[in-house]
Amino acid sequence: MDPVIFVGSANLALAAATAESIGLTLGARALARFPDGELHLEVQETVRGREVFLVEPTGPPVHEHLFELFMMADACRRAGAVRLIAIIPYFAYAREDRRATGRDPVGGRVVADLLGACGIERVVAVDLHTGSLEGFFPFPLEHLSAVGLIAQMAATSGVPAESVIVSPDLGAVKLAERYARLLRMPIAIVNKTRLSGEEVEARGIVGEVRGRPILVVDDMISTGGTIAAAVKAALAAGALPDVTVAATHGLFVGSALKRLGGLGVKRFIVSDSVAQGRELPIRVVSIAPLLGEAIKRLHTGQSLDHLIAHM
Amino acid sequence: MDPVIFVGSANLALAAATAESIGLTLGARALARFPDGELHLEVQETVRGREVFLVEPTGPPVHEHLFELFMMADACRRAGAVRLIAIIPYFAYAREDRRATGRDPVGGRVVADLLGACGIERVVAVDLHTGSLEGFFPFPLEHLSAVGLIAQMAATSGVPAESVIVSPDLGAVKLAERYARLLRMPIAIVNKTRLSGEEVEARGIVGEVRGRPILVVDDMISTGGTIAAAVKAALAAGALPDVTVAATHGLFVGSALKRLGGLGVKRFIVSDSVAQGRELPIRVVSIAPLLGEAIKRLHTGQSLDHLIAHM
Amino acid sequence: MDPVIFVGSANLALAAATAESIGLTLGARALARFPDGELHLEVQETVRGREVFLVEPTGPPVHEHLFELFMMADACRRAGAVRLIAIIPYFAYAREDRRATGRDPVGGRVVADLLGACGIERVVAVDLHTGSLEGFFPFPLEHLSAVGLIAQMAATSGVPAESVIVSPDLGAVKLAERYARLLRMPIAIVNKTRLSGEEVEARGIVGEVRGRPILVVDDMISTGGTIAAAVKAALAAGALPDVTVAATHGLFVGSALKRLGGLGVKRFIVSDSVAQGRELPIRVVSIAPLLGEAIKRLHTGQSLDHLIAHM
Amino acid sequence: MDPVIFVGSANLALAAATAESIGLTLGARALARFPDGELHLEVQETVRGREVFLVEPTGPPVHEHLFELFMMADACRRAGAVRLIAIIPYFAYAREDRRATGRDPVGGRVVADLLGACGIERVVAVDLHTGSLEGFFPFPLEHLSAVGLIAQMAATSGVPAESVIVSPDLGAVKLAERYARLLRMPIAIVNKTRLSGEEVEARGIVGEVRGRPILVVDDMISTGGTIAAAVKAALAAGALPDVTVAATHGLFVGSALKRLGGLGVKRFIVSDSVAQGRELPIRVVSIAPLLGEAIKRLHTGQSLDHLIAHM
Amino acid sequence: MDPVIFVGSANLALAAATAESIGLTLGARALARFPDGELHLEVQETVRGREVFLVEPTGPPVHEHLFELFMMADACRRAGAVRLIAIIPYFAYAREDRRATGRDPVGGRVVADLLGACGIERVVAVDLHTGSLEGFFPFPLEHLSAVGLIAQMAATSGVPAESVIVSPDLGAVKLAERYARLLRMPIAIVNKTRLSGEEVEARGIVGEVRGRPILVVDDMISTGGTIAAAVKAALAAGALPDVTVAATHGLFVGSALKRLGGLGVKRFIVSDSVAQGRELPIRVVSIAPLLGEAIKRLHTGQSLDHLIAHM
Amino acid sequence: MDPVIFVGSANLALAAATAESIGLTLGARALARFPDGELHLEVQETVRGREVFLVEPTGPPVHEHLFELFMMADACRRAGAVRLIAIIPYFAYAREDRRATGRDPVGGRVVADLLGACGIERVVAVDLHTGSLEGFFPFPLEHLSAVGLIAQMAATSGVPAESVIVSPDLGAVKLAERYARLLRMPIAIVNKTRLSGEEVEARGIVGEVRGRPILVVDDMISTGGTIAAAVKAALAAGALPDVTVAATHGLFVGSALKRLGGLGVKRFIVSDSVAQGRELPIRVVSIAPLLGEAIKRLHTGQSLDHLIAHM
Repeated sequence: MDPVIFVGSANLALAAATAESIGLTLGARALARFPDGELHLEVQETVRGREVFLVEPTGPPVHEHLFELFMMADACRRAGAVRLIAIIPYFAYAREDRRATGRDPVGGRVVADLLGACGIERVVAVDLHTGSLEGFFPFPLEHLSAVGLIAQMAATSGVPAESVIVSPDLGAVKLAERYARLLRMPIAIVNKTRLSGEEVEARGIVGEVRGRPILVVDDMISTGGTIAAAVKAALAAGALPDVTVAATHGLFVGSALKRLGGLGVKRFIVSDSVAQGRELPIRVVSIAPLLGEAIKRLHTGQSLDHLIAHM
Repeated sequence: MDPVIFVGSANLALAAATAESIGLTLGARALARFPDGELHLEVQETVRGREVFLVEPTGPPVHEHLFELFMMADACRRAGAVRLIAIIPYFAYAREDRRATGRDPVGGRVVADLLGACGIERVVAVDLHTGSLEGFFPFPLEHLSAVGLIAQMAATSGVPAESVIVSPDLGAVKLAERYARLLRMPIAIVNKTRLSGEEVEARGIVGEVRGRPILVVDDMISTGGTIAAAVKAALAAGALPDVTVAATHGLFVGSALKRLGGLGVKRFIVSDSVAQGRELPIRVVSIAPLLGEAIKRLHTGQSLDHLIAHM
Repeated sequence: MDPVIFVGSANLALAAATAESIGLTLGARALARFPDGELHLEVQETVRGREVFLVEPTGPPVHEHLFELFMMADACRRAGAVRLIAIIPYFAYAREDRRATGRDPVGGRVVADLLGACGIERVVAVDLHTGSLEGFFPFPLEHLSAVGLIAQMAATSGVPAESVIVSPDLGAVKLAERYARLLRMPIAIVNKTRLSGEEVEARGIVGEVRGRPILVVDDMISTGGTIAAAVKAALAAGALPDVTVAATHGLFVGSALKRLGGLGVKRFIVSDSVAQGRELPIRVVSIAPLLGEAIKRLHTGQSLDHLIAHM
Repeated sequence: MDPVIFVGSANLALAAATAESIGLTLGARALARFPDGELHLEVQETVRGREVFLVEPTGPPVHEHLFELFMMADACRRAGAVRLIAIIPYFAYAREDRRATGRDPVGGRVVADLLGACGIERVVAVDLHTGSLEGFFPFPLEHLSAVGLIAQMAATSGVPAESVIVSPDLGAVKLAERYARLLRMPIAIVNKTRLSGEEVEARGIVGEVRGRPILVVDDMISTGGTIAAAVKAALAAGALPDVTVAATHGLFVGSALKRLGGLGVKRFIVSDSVAQGRELPIRVVSIAPLLGEAIKRLHTGQSLDHLIAHM
Repeated sequence: MDPVIFVGSANLALAAATAESIGLTLGARALARFPDGELHLEVQETVRGREVFLVEPTGPPVHEHLFELFMMADACRRAGAVRLIAIIPYFAYAREDRRATGRDPVGGRVVADLLGACGIERVVAVDLHTGSLEGFFPFPLEHLSAVGLIAQMAATSGVPAESVIVSPDLGAVKLAERYARLLRMPIAIVNKTRLSGEEVEARGIVGEVRGRPILVVDDMISTGGTIAAAVKAALAAGALPDVTVAATHGLFVGSALKRLGGLGVKRFIVSDSVAQGRELPIRVVSIAPLLGEAIKRLHTGQSLDHLIAHM
Repeated sequence: MDPVIFVGSANLALAAATAESIGLTLGARALARFPDGELHLEVQETVRGREVFLVEPTGPPVHEHLFELFMMADACRRAGAVRLIAIIPYFAYAREDRRATGRDPVGGRVVADLLGACGIERVVAVDLHTGSLEGFFPFPLEHLSAVGLIAQMAATSGVPAESVIVSPDLGAVKLAERYARLLRMPIAIVNKTRLSGEEVEARGIVGEVRGRPILVVDDMISTGGTIAAAVKAALAAGALPDVTVAATHGLFVGSALKRLGGLGVKRFIVSDSVAQGRELPIRVVSIAPLLGEAIKRLHTGQSLDHLIAHM
């Protein structure tokens, strides 16, 4: 029997495209909020005996999206679904993988526990900020990667072939190396220091960028602070003012776009893991085929090998 | 060792008054949101080896408040708290105690499971919409009542002694009977029908209200729909236009206050379970002493007997 | 592969009729008691890889029937059953949905936990005393209703068409409204007070019964105390002495039948959820087709929608 | 703070003596049955923050006694007990430690799981039929022995010093060896075959009984079948007709006493683990001091070493 | 879909023969150790959606073999296996079924818990030292027996038909009786005392061995201490010096073989549950067909009835 | 009551020094291996009602040490310990924090699950290879750091003040920065590529080492491959042949010492987290005071703040 795919309110377009990519349509469901803000959900498909995929990136508003997932999961398991798989293309709280001070929560683990408490039995994520999040779940997490798709877009949308890949911090080096291999570009690494939640300062840059266009890559663009610092450092080191920024998750929180535009970034390449307005200079690569393929393979028992973020 | 009391952002005043009522001050903690909406929490007290009470009513924004509870719980258990007790004066999703259609979630149980997943080991609630929510938890739920405090306020703030208690639906009859006993007033019952999420219609009224002031009682005032229908029905049945509305939880969602004011309600009596603006005609009874006493008794191993909502 | 249906000692006839209604026969099993009262059970069918339904209403002797369920479940899961579903047409301890005094058990939750501890993964119940029992289970509970079947019997077995439906207490009003809709009869409501475990007193009746036959409806007839008080109140309010009592579960504990007969009740309509002697004036409606249909639909992955007690 | 000791209906005298032996009285509780057989329990002591011991041997009626334990446990944990310890002097279903046929339950494990599901965190048992039952629990089981007390009674109540200890089957040999060591008597072993649930036949006897009185020992006397076969075999082998039977648990199910009396057994020595009528020829040794000592040591954190059934 | 069978390093030959017996080949996997001793495992088959059998007897080095099981289980469940079944022909720590002193672990339960923690859902074992180990698992344990196979080998490999079966201690009597029934030989029983971990002394022998060859049977041969004591006792009692020793598990720890050879044991018959060097005088019976049949029946949902160690 | 500290066989000296540093002695226990390699453990202290700390680094032989932990934990919880805390100074499998290929285990999570399955409720670790391992546990992990102690030793044992700190790969940069801050030295970073399990190649070095002595720092020295590559790269970049290597965990697997000595490393500074032979050129800093302080603070409910590895 075909699987059922439901979507919350976070990214209808992505979920619909995902379903369509494998010849399905989204499962019908009514999702609303009562005047006091409590969710009102009704699944409108028979799910008894079927495998259910819940597609919901957890970008802002984070907690609303997470609760939509929780409630969809509960409704489906009570209605007799045989297996609940959450497709969470952008995974919130992935940066909170340990206590910073000894008296703070491990947010990533909290989210993992809550998903499990609602009956989710498997999670599919894309280019997680922290790969070891996999160990936070008692059940399997499939870690897909959009790097291949984004690199392909970079190669065909005006990014100069002589660009240098710039990793904006040490945490992104492995990601940058994957881009470098795919695009056959050299690499430079910025070593950053975080001054506050939003403010970041580059402490140095390793590798040669002088006289070259740059392609800054990261897993996500949130407020843009880290990337802005990297761009500044690269320009200061003599990079040409032909700057592309590529990342899987384009959250563009607050004035991120303006801030980076102000530094002369010419192109942004992101996936549609988080819903995008799709206006230039943002080029959007759809991960719907990636997610669709993963759903098909999970449902029919085939290997996910070539879809996985090998690290 | 003294217990530690933390509060999220939902009702600082209530928590502070609760702590003060038993000679304590609130535990220090930093609670903020990152630009993308993720919570940033740091407990700033030593909690190792101590019993921790987390005070957080879950009125709107519901999911924000719930996540504050989850994160505070995780931070405290990792920091070595010996026991985590959530004081949830207003308990969201308490009306979702069963599936309505067979394909919806049981929201009350979802919340119970999530609280448990974060290490909460006991919950204290006040005048729950559904008493059987107690059975949704694998651990004890202490069900306190503010009815005594509210009845006392009614008796001393101008509610005419010859009023008739009006239960706005069958679900509130037991509550109305408790008010009737305490205030020695007769009782009338409205049998309602729900037309939609917000619209409610009275199908009849039982008991004599003709020529008498009325005191409509319920566990909560949300959009005011149920209560408005009851007021209309009572006035149509000849009740005097001297109307008081009393409830434990005054959410006053949307235009509730305006709607009820338009029907001539003269007085509202609610507790501070949900933060109140405290302007007339709303009289606010503080449940801080009730919660403080519960904390003291839970912490020192004394009976909660006289604080409990016996039903 | 066909599912296997086993039955304990509680209601062989119902289980056999249920199996037969969908073209199956009961699974063979030996069930006896050792001289010291311990159960001796042996399943005599291959259950490996099969879905197993255990049919066992938990009327008196309550604890014997519950332990038969526990032991059958353990035997079946060890023998390799893929899924264990308990069909509990009458669900004991459903009235204990919260603590009454603060120092008593929540019996309904205890039973839910014990069933889960034995490997039961789904429960099917019929007209539960408390619908919110659904939230007591970590797994789905399907709440079926026999009201349609009983109403149909009432319409064809001499209950006068001009009868008034009487709800014997506020808890049964929703049930009474379902009967009223199906039989197009008016409704009257008795507000009762419980004097002791068995003794109940009516505090008033709402709705017009004068000069009309009455049809008192409830989810169950146990000692008959509540229903007797309602009959007395209705007769005192002028109802005709043409009284029918209808309920899903006819336990008829102790002298219930005599007590109600003494008040002039002419007809009883109950289901066979609890084994009945089947003598007049008790008319028995079989729920075997209802249960059979539920088993078939659960087994083949179809919706239970039209079998469910919507509330 | 002192622990609280509650008792169900199984053995009030033993529990009271146990409490008294360490200077306590039993905790007050109301325990009754509704007319339909459901239990009605109310704990009438403050248990918040206290350690609770529930004393309940699970002799016939087995399932009633087990449910009393379950409900007492639930009431106490909801009321705030810090730890629940079940004292189960006679442990039902201890003989069902494995599947016999592959399609039967493992009753001992079922009971262990149910106790755990109710919040029991430790069990104290006495002379279990199967010592490996200890591994059935996720929490500690303390296995005490009454052999010392019974041997002492044997030595002082007319059992001839020249008796031979007879183990009625191979499973009781280790127990018999403990009696032999304590009483400095020789040992003989009967190898039995079970013909049916109640009927047992001796296949041979090892060790010399000719011309000697015998003391047959076992962990329990249920229907007496095993012991009767042993007595017959010993008499046939020339033992003197001076027969004593000693066992920790004297269930004396059905006609056990008559059957053994008919074989000329002169004396029975049993403990009060199961309530006894206390008439000759049954001599009853109280295990109250043993249980009291265990409670005291568990409560104050002392070693149970010398109370344990070392095997 | 066919199941996948993986093997650790413990007994490749057995696993391969098992797979072959049902027309399968072993699943490919890379299993190595890093220089620091940590395991390095990679499953090289697609296991998504398939049932996985992990074959690994846990003879010495015990903890290495157990960790291979744990890691294989984790890899398979993360890779999407639908069910994990451990085939553990020789089960380590089976003798630790209870505490001996009150302050030691229950090793059998520890191993059971660890297997469950890794996602194992069913265990298949052969001739366990303690049958009640079955109750240590929350999931089913299938207890197969190689006694039939070994008895057949005894009958066809020179064991004299007039031999007496000797049970080397009381714990092996039931096993000895099964051999006696199959081979139609009489039985004799040795009652032993353990002096130390390795040293054992016979306290007596029951049954007639004078002038007869003997066949000593046990579940396992470890250091050979128990069996050596039995052989000595039998020879002292006049048995002929034609001694065969048969056991399911031939661990032959340390100098076991030399010690028993020194006593004149002429033949050993063991299974290949633990890898054997296969030199005379050890005759090895393969349990591969037994395990293969069990795998086939578990996979296709057929009864294991005739493969089970009925006790 | 004082806590009890037990140690397995992994590092007796460290555990004894730890206990001594807070005025305690190690708890008595007998720990041996049966001839077949199974562990034989007996706790020889009363642990009832006491907090127990189990000190056991899990260096080679890894699985032996882990099983000692499991068995000690089981023995202690059965004997009545109130809380079990594992002190695991060197934590095996910490590098396996995610799947590398999609079909391998997440070893770190497996170990976390196994520890939890044995009743461990808290873990104390030192300078973990992967800090996010914290999220793998359902209970708190306290992550201590020996960096301060090692830096202090470096400052007082001949490491030239003009040295440059070298981080041998990107994963060690944060650690290197902590050393740099404490020792006020500049930093250089090597970017490595792993060729095989043991062979590593440096791809470049960032920061100035020419003409300066170097201090290579890492969390652990295993085979020394990563460090050797870093030393070679630094020497090739002109560093002076005055090389110190400092790491928390000195495993020195295989020929690590010889390999590094061959490159001219003059000094090694490691902690005693893993037992050391203590010969020059290895200087050993004891973490016993660090662990002792942690035990004292955990036991008495004080903050661990200044002992924690802030990252």
